[in-house]
Amino acid sequence: MIQLSRIHPRIIETLRTSVEMTDAEVVQCWGRFELIHFKKKDFFLKEGEICRLRGYINEGCFRRYTTNMHGKENILHFAIEDWWIGDLESMGSCQPSVYNIQALEESEVFCISQPEHLRLCNEMPKYFSLHEAKEKRFLYASLKRLTIAQAGTPEEKYLLLARQHPELFQRIPMHYIASYLGIQPESLSRLRKRLVKKEKKS
Amino acid sequence: MIQLSRIHPRIIETLRTSVEMTDAEVVQCWGRFELIHFKKKDFFLKEGEICRLRGYINEGCFRRYTTNMHGKENILHFAIEDWWIGDLESMGSCQPSVYNIQALEESEVFCISQPEHLRLCNEMPKYFSLHEAKEKRFLYASLKRLTIAQAGTPEEKYLLLARQHPELFQRIPMHYIASYLGIQPESLSRLRKRLVKKEKKS
Repeated sequence: MIQLSRIHPRIIETLRTSVEMTDAEVVQCWGRFELIHFKKKDFFLKEGEICRLRGYINEGCFRRYTTNMHGKENILHFAIEDWWIGDLESMGSCQPSVYNIQALEESEVFCISQPEHLRLCNEMPKYFSLHEAKEKRFLYASLKRLTIAQAGTPEEKYLLLARQHPELFQRIPMHYIASYLGIQPESLSRLRKRLVKKEKKS
Repeated sequence: MIQLSRIHPRIIETLRTSVEMTDAEVVQCWGRFELIHFKKKDFFLKEGEICRLRGYINEGCFRRYTTNMHGKENILHFAIEDWWIGDLESMGSCQPSVYNIQALEESEVFCISQPEHLRLCNEMPKYFSLHEAKEKRFLYASLKRLTIAQAGTPEEKYLLLARQHPELFQRIPMHYIASYLGIQPESLSRLRKRLVKKEKKS
């Protein structure tokens, strides 16, 4: 039995407002998940593994990245509380994943297997609605993420990220932000200094 | 009443194999759509408009792009037969879209409004399943697209695209491929020549 107090307030707020779950329903629903703890740098999923679990972040922060043929890492997404993690394509096809999903902080994730998730979707329409809404949000976020990747100069990319996700700068090390933006950490550092100077002048 | 012969064979194949629609069901379902013709360079959606229609490409090819603050275009996706186009976020929120969706060839699109689409989802479980499968496919494709945008060198980006979507090279002008890869058209041209030489040597 999961205690309501163990669930992050942001998640409870989402469940109440977006799908109108009562406290009893939250406990009933979240009781079907296993709460797994991840230390900083632990992996939720590693490239080459088949993804077996869906994760819903209760606390903490993860990065999703690929490695290219020279072993260079490319960060595709960051995920924080109230976001799902996992690789649905690997899960659905039972093929090895091409993604790594790694904790950037001490983290706690509500985990559920695919069969149990599907059962819950059938049994609880509110859970199904929540899941649909979150999948849509991820899709929209992926498109926005792409606009950052495709933006012209490093400065444009940086400013887009700062506007779309200012909260990330508080908790994610700058070399990961640089990788996400596809620029060198030293260039990011110079860029930030230049922008601060510009701001002071204006 | 839509004639079966008006529907692209690739779509009929998808409907038969992925959701087991009979010919009668295809006609019943697709009869609820309006078949709209787009000339080359016509817009399905323009930045600043609220998206009112979902489109399912029967024939042709579209690009989705944004423009940055200097008016530079960034191509996010290409879409061909059997792919949906539109901006679900704009449609759901009734907010102006940030995307442009433009025909690259003479094209034909089955179009449906959101209320009609939802009615059809309720009435025809096979249509709903199709829609769900296509949304998942778009999500997976968006993640793969991001790996191309984030790949290190222009050569790596080019080779990833060539491996993932060789069919695009047959029908999309090279300056659009260059924009999609985030490189200059002249650089793409030099890169292609270099790769051809390499191939001949090996």
